[in-house]
Amino acid sequence: MAKKLTVINGPNLNLLGEREPGIYGTLTLKELTDGLKRRFPEVEFTFIQSNHEGSLVDAIHQALQANADGIILNAAAYTHTSVALRDAVSAVKIPTVEVHLSNVHAREDFRHRSLIAPVCKGVIAGFGPKSYDLAVMAFQDDVNG
Amino acid sequence: MAKKLTVINGPNLNLLGEREPGIYGTLTLKELTDGLKRRFPEVEFTFIQSNHEGSLVDAIHQALQANADGIILNAAAYTHTSVALRDAVSAVKIPTVEVHLSNVHAREDFRHRSLIAPVCKGVIAGFGPKSYDLAVMAFQDDVNG
Amino acid sequence: MAKKLTVINGPNLNLLGEREPGIYGTLTLKELTDGLKRRFPEVEFTFIQSNHEGSLVDAIHQALQANADGIILNAAAYTHTSVALRDAVSAVKIPTVEVHLSNVHAREDFRHRSLIAPVCKGVIAGFGPKSYDLAVMAFQDDVNG
Amino acid sequence: MAKKLTVINGPNLNLLGEREPGIYGTLTLKELTDGLKRRFPEVEFTFIQSNHEGSLVDAIHQALQANADGIILNAAAYTHTSVALRDAVSAVKIPTVEVHLSNVHAREDFRHRSLIAPVCKGVIAGFGPKSYDLAVMAFQDDVNG
Amino acid sequence: MAKKLTVINGPNLNLLGEREPGIYGTLTLKELTDGLKRRFPEVEFTFIQSNHEGSLVDAIHQALQANADGIILNAAAYTHTSVALRDAVSAVKIPTVEVHLSNVHAREDFRHRSLIAPVCKGVIAGFGPKSYDLAVMAFQDDVNG
Amino acid sequence: MAKKLTVINGPNLNLLGEREPGIYGTLTLKELTDGLKRRFPEVEFTFIQSNHEGSLVDAIHQALQANADGIILNAAAYTHTSVALRDAVSAVKIPTVEVHLSNVHAREDFRHRSLIAPVCKGVIAGFGPKSYDLAVMAFQDDVNG
Amino acid sequence: MAKKLTVINGPNLNLLGEREPGIYGTLTLKELTDGLKRRFPEVEFTFIQSNHEGSLVDAIHQALQANADGIILNAAAYTHTSVALRDAVSAVKIPTVEVHLSNVHAREDFRHRSLIAPVCKGVIAGFGPKSYDLAVMAFQDDVNG
Amino acid sequence: MAKKLTVINGPNLNLLGEREPGIYGTLTLKELTDGLKRRFPEVEFTFIQSNHEGSLVDAIHQALQANADGIILNAAAYTHTSVALRDAVSAVKIPTVEVHLSNVHAREDFRHRSLIAPVCKGVIAGFGPKSYDLAVMAFQDDVNG
Amino acid sequence: MAKKLTVINGPNLNLLGEREPGIYGTLTLKELTDGLKRRFPEVEFTFIQSNHEGSLVDAIHQALQANADGIILNAAAYTHTSVALRDAVSAVKIPTVEVHLSNVHAREDFRHRSLIAPVCKGVIAGFGPKSYDLAVMAFQDDVNG
Amino acid sequence: MAKKLTVINGPNLNLLGEREPGIYGTLTLKELTDGLKRRFPEVEFTFIQSNHEGSLVDAIHQALQANADGIILNAAAYTHTSVALRDAVSAVKIPTVEVHLSNVHAREDFRHRSLIAPVCKGVIAGFGPKSYDLAVMAFQDDVNG
Amino acid sequence: MAKKLTVINGPNLNLLGEREPGIYGTLTLKELTDGLKRRFPEVEFTFIQSNHEGSLVDAIHQALQANADGIILNAAAYTHTSVALRDAVSAVKIPTVEVHLSNVHAREDFRHRSLIAPVCKGVIAGFGPKSYDLAVMAFQDDVNG
Amino acid sequence: MAKKLTVINGPNLNLLGEREPGIYGTLTLKELTDGLKRRFPEVEFTFIQSNHEGSLVDAIHQALQANADGIILNAAAYTHTSVALRDAVSAVKIPTVEVHLSNVHAREDFRHRSLIAPVCKGVIAGFGPKSYDLAVMAFQDDVNG
Repeated sequence: MAKKLTVINGPNLNLLGEREPGIYGTLTLKELTDGLKRRFPEVEFTFIQSNHEGSLVDAIHQALQANADGIILNAAAYTHTSVALRDAVSAVKIPTVEVHLSNVHAREDFRHRSLIAPVCKGVIAGFGPKSYDLAVMAFQDDVNG
Repeated sequence: MAKKLTVINGPNLNLLGEREPGIYGTLTLKELTDGLKRRFPEVEFTFIQSNHEGSLVDAIHQALQANADGIILNAAAYTHTSVALRDAVSAVKIPTVEVHLSNVHAREDFRHRSLIAPVCKGVIAGFGPKSYDLAVMAFQDDVNG
Repeated sequence: MAKKLTVINGPNLNLLGEREPGIYGTLTLKELTDGLKRRFPEVEFTFIQSNHEGSLVDAIHQALQANADGIILNAAAYTHTSVALRDAVSAVKIPTVEVHLSNVHAREDFRHRSLIAPVCKGVIAGFGPKSYDLAVMAFQDDVNG
Repeated sequence: MAKKLTVINGPNLNLLGEREPGIYGTLTLKELTDGLKRRFPEVEFTFIQSNHEGSLVDAIHQALQANADGIILNAAAYTHTSVALRDAVSAVKIPTVEVHLSNVHAREDFRHRSLIAPVCKGVIAGFGPKSYDLAVMAFQDDVNG
Repeated sequence: MAKKLTVINGPNLNLLGEREPGIYGTLTLKELTDGLKRRFPEVEFTFIQSNHEGSLVDAIHQALQANADGIILNAAAYTHTSVALRDAVSAVKIPTVEVHLSNVHAREDFRHRSLIAPVCKGVIAGFGPKSYDLAVMAFQDDVNG
Repeated sequence: MAKKLTVINGPNLNLLGEREPGIYGTLTLKELTDGLKRRFPEVEFTFIQSNHEGSLVDAIHQALQANADGIILNAAAYTHTSVALRDAVSAVKIPTVEVHLSNVHAREDFRHRSLIAPVCKGVIAGFGPKSYDLAVMAFQDDVNG
Repeated sequence: MAKKLTVINGPNLNLLGEREPGIYGTLTLKELTDGLKRRFPEVEFTFIQSNHEGSLVDAIHQALQANADGIILNAAAYTHTSVALRDAVSAVKIPTVEVHLSNVHAREDFRHRSLIAPVCKGVIAGFGPKSYDLAVMAFQDDVNG
Repeated sequence: MAKKLTVINGPNLNLLGEREPGIYGTLTLKELTDGLKRRFPEVEFTFIQSNHEGSLVDAIHQALQANADGIILNAAAYTHTSVALRDAVSAVKIPTVEVHLSNVHAREDFRHRSLIAPVCKGVIAGFGPKSYDLAVMAFQDDVNG
Repeated sequence: MAKKLTVINGPNLNLLGEREPGIYGTLTLKELTDGLKRRFPEVEFTFIQSNHEGSLVDAIHQALQANADGIILNAAAYTHTSVALRDAVSAVKIPTVEVHLSNVHAREDFRHRSLIAPVCKGVIAGFGPKSYDLAVMAFQDDVNG
Repeated sequence: MAKKLTVINGPNLNLLGEREPGIYGTLTLKELTDGLKRRFPEVEFTFIQSNHEGSLVDAIHQALQANADGIILNAAAYTHTSVALRDAVSAVKIPTVEVHLSNVHAREDFRHRSLIAPVCKGVIAGFGPKSYDLAVMAFQDDVNG
Repeated sequence: MAKKLTVINGPNLNLLGEREPGIYGTLTLKELTDGLKRRFPEVEFTFIQSNHEGSLVDAIHQALQANADGIILNAAAYTHTSVALRDAVSAVKIPTVEVHLSNVHAREDFRHRSLIAPVCKGVIAGFGPKSYDLAVMAFQDDVNG
Repeated sequence: MAKKLTVINGPNLNLLGEREPGIYGTLTLKELTDGLKRRFPEVEFTFIQSNHEGSLVDAIHQALQANADGIILNAAAYTHTSVALRDAVSAVKIPTVEVHLSNVHAREDFRHRSLIAPVCKGVIAGFGPKSYDLAVMAFQDDVNG
């Protein structure tokens, strides 16, 4: 049966591909999400982007209404400052994978701490748009020996 | 052409599958590496495990001799304490993916800091043995829109 | 004359009673606010819930327009991160009581610091929905010897 | 059946009403406790005040002997320095409400941390003598929707 | 040719002139912006005020659409907590001047740190409404010896 | 009547325009001060530069003897280390504007803290020599709506 | 000749065996001290328990009057907060062994620091009542090769 | 008219002159207080020593009852840990001079912080028994030019 | 039945008795282990010393193969820096007693923190070679009242 | 024989009595030093004031040339920042008393730390000009019982 | 008589000259040690390189066996993390000079702290391979005036 | 052609050889500089000593006027507190070697941090007067393999 995944992108990711390609690459957010749909036709995706912390909280709640099997969350700047998003992830109890385009550990100190990661299933960071692909794959069946 | 990947596992991972299955699962290290070979027959793997920080440094150097295309590094406990491994990764300049079986951000505070991640290409944590699969995939061709 | 109290609930409290009953109980937010109206018929309540920090700031400003006698503020996650809410409380100079359902001091370290409490009249935490009742009572006439 | 509550007041509270009325009000400790008895005739109160940390520990133990249903604890200065009182509350396992006359969060930094609150049921601070009334009410039956 | 400047005001500044005149003066936000238009008729201003962090991020993005020559940003409380605004300023690469009405360095410790200033062109703080005038002048031609 | 302003420049600013033009520009200190006199002929300037913390303290005291209406202080390196200059500014009670050529917030961490700013009227940083012009303007009549 | 040892127990240890058996076991303090006397008949013991920091200081002084050969000190909560006990141990210069029933290093962070240990001969922690037995043995003749 | 001074000595000072003469000298506490009485016959002294923090708080309260003109307080170890003593000094509002026999700033780090000094009139440390003489003199008439 | 105990000594302990007798005494490591065997003939000892962190990890794993009843671990310098040893002790789940010859709490600050102690059964420090004897005794039958 | 005392006053103390009388009183530095000469005619005083850290270092060296019996040092702002003055006091080995007019412990946090006090004989703070009198007395013969 | 010097090189220095020439230069480790032998023929050198912390500890012990007059120690990454090497240097009491090729103070923060330097004779950093030459010279006869 | 080196000595070094020989040796500053001239006749030395931070800044600027090839800087106490000296070294861009007579890492914590070292070529510390000789040698031609 098709997996339902909600992909949530946070502040400034609407500018993806247009600004700071040195850090974030040249792919636009639309190209990124279209690519995901094309490469994973068996997945039922919901895509949400907002610069508003509250809207991202709402989006997590909506994933609950939609019976999502998982959330792929690139909270961007809010990763490092939002207890509200952490609490939302905790509350809905939907397995959530935190993703980042860049390797946040190689950037400013304040980007090394994630308030959200402790309540996620796992973290994938540093692979550009491919971080999202890996996150989708992470929701597929577990490997065994 | 076949990719050459060196998979390096650090201290205590030789006990994988035998001890603390609650945290690390029931797969042994041999089963884990056998699984990788089976699922990625096109990859030329080199597997190394050691409890010795110095041997892990040596292994990173050997990846250089072997012209590895990439390193998958689960430094385990040394992730949080080893400047030597960080310097080794910096020195060989082979793209390196840091992996963890567990979500280190959900464990003790001292496991939240990685000395090695800032010089890696990216980090994948929290997906059990599948973290390694995702890391292998991260070395495959980049996605495009 | 009837007291006018604005009761403001912050992020994720819309899920009250539905998620994490172990921490927050089984009462929904609607049941909680209905209960307050029933138990304190002499109070003129305004109830606001939002997951948006900015909307909570707006709500505090609206309490000023409405000549509220007091604010009962459960800023939830924003308690620990929002200077904007602190400044809003400071600006409107309406007596404000900070409330929490759970005993925040018994939870994660980052929940021990409130940015808002220093500009409030007082704080009540740990009594579940009853925290709100106590806050309402705190706005009644002062006791004397 | 009558509730038995032990009300424990810590160092310098014997001076209540006589010194620093700007912070603590003009009610004496006797007036405060007499008021509680008058307003809550159905409660069986035991009142203890001491400037000695050890005596406060003893008082908490005595509440155990007396089968108290609850403790209302204003540990005053010891709130911020006493592991012994924390351990006593932990040991006796009687529900304890930490109260403060003033809003400790609006005072010096060292008053923002309570060593005792993490093992209490809840905290009420900033309402003057009324903080005690609210604490008593907090021991009454839980509200329901 | 006329300069295009976007003036962005953050949370609680809608109350300017109405609340806390001791800190912020008696001029309303409308009077402040009207004054700027009157004193700098050659500048094409866009004025935005919001209590929502996300709306301020949006406003910075809109300055990009509008080909603004500069941004004057009083992020108020978000100055000290918002990585999202910092990232927005970094992304749009429009020269930005951070302004404050009050001298933030003379207030609480948490107001001494600006997350946004490091990616701005400069900072002007402490001159009341005149801070904005100085910021406008800062966008005029550079002086030379 | 002419305003009297004392402009005090601290350590290494005698090298202005000769060294590190990437950070500080190519204008010499003499050109900078000559430019100020030319652009603000109505102001009675006193210019002082010294590499000695004590001489800068003396200069602030002399501003008091000279009945200066204001001090423009670029304490350079001493900004971050000098309690003596802070105390001097506090003592003479002459309105003082702290200026910096570069945006100190975009440089090393130790340059983010100013010991002097808390006792100044305001701070202007990041506009090169124009920071001084803006500071002079800051001493002109206050704007009104 | 018989060794004289003073065994001092600090706050809340009077409840030993009655409360929190999960941490401290089911042996009462009386049973613990009786057991010591029975197992070490050749030792002349003095036993003191108090919840008062001052009384524990007094007890250390009394050990001096009594010409004790050693002190076994379980300062419990005061271990982490009492400079007074540290100074008392320093002053009397009687060899002192700090003991703990539980492994304090496996509990809350604030229990990891002992203010008293630096002036003791040694520390024994984590062995339940047996910690005291080991402490007594530590006062017996030194082993040699 | 005779000044009334209460001299309060804290924990372990009963051992003065008997233990650790290298740090504290060879004078006993009795010799010290006798010397004060002999050298300042015009002063009406009250001397109190206790190892109990609570008794020292009581002693400060008693100074209030006794209409003391001043308190000379050597809180010894409690200097660094007691908020209760700080609050007591604040409450009674009797001018208090903190004294120390040794120069606490030349000893362990934790002795560099005094919780009590901020609410005292002044501090005298490092002069052995003479610290007390100087404190008495500090209560005599103020010098003038 | 004979207890099997593995005694593991870390870096530099091979120099025991030869270097720094002031801190560590004059007994050599061989004399120390011979003494243990002589004094506890009923115990089946395995002795391992290594300067290599990895070898010590290996040794802990070997204790598992050997069905050891307990480990006595003097990790020396690695006590304060090794997460790998901590993880090894956690993994094998063999009761482990951390021992130190010297009182580490009386030495440099960085020796006060043990990364390993939180996962051990208990800690014994400061008794010279006798620390090992006490550790052996700690593995004997529990005392009862 | 007459004692020789060098009294050294640091930055901004030349303004004494003229500025900030609320903190420092109305006595000028000349009146203060004249008063000392008048009240202690038997002492041979040398008075030095400078705003230059280096000159204060020089002054301490000169006290050595002059065979001073003691130094009374009010380093003012340099108290908190000058390692150079600390080293000078250490080098000359002349007994030095640190004095302050105000109670530095009741002021800003950065005034609570003295870099110089650890190498002084003692500290006297908070008694206004009388602090100097007490310091002179501190150099007189030691009291005995 | 010939001096005997043991030159110990730590992790990753086997790659010297091959990797990161921008930081470490183009000289290989063999060229570096050959150069030392050629330029200082009168010195009897022992050269050791290892990536293993334990082997470096062993090497320091071996210098003791070899009666080395001095140790030149470039512990590389272990400089910042190894208490074991510090203890080894302390134990053997052979004068040791810490050397670094690069100026560690100009690199990441964690490279500014050396755990080993406090027990060395001195430190030489930043001169590339010449750091070793200077270290050898440091072992030659002391200069005199 | 002769190298021109400016040797700058900071505060208290004028006392060299006269005070604290245990730390700094018995050689006077004149003997030290005379020795350098005698041992390195081919070098054109300029020697400057001052207790004034500002004069040391001036001296660094003068090295620029004098076309010095290098600066040998013992900033003594100012090493740890002077941003002004750091900025001067940065500005003149003359290769600078920081030297210390003593091993600063073996002394007080505040001497472990150098504000100047990050902008120097290298650091030499701990070899007494020979530190200067090594610094001169460091300016000689680079060694090659």
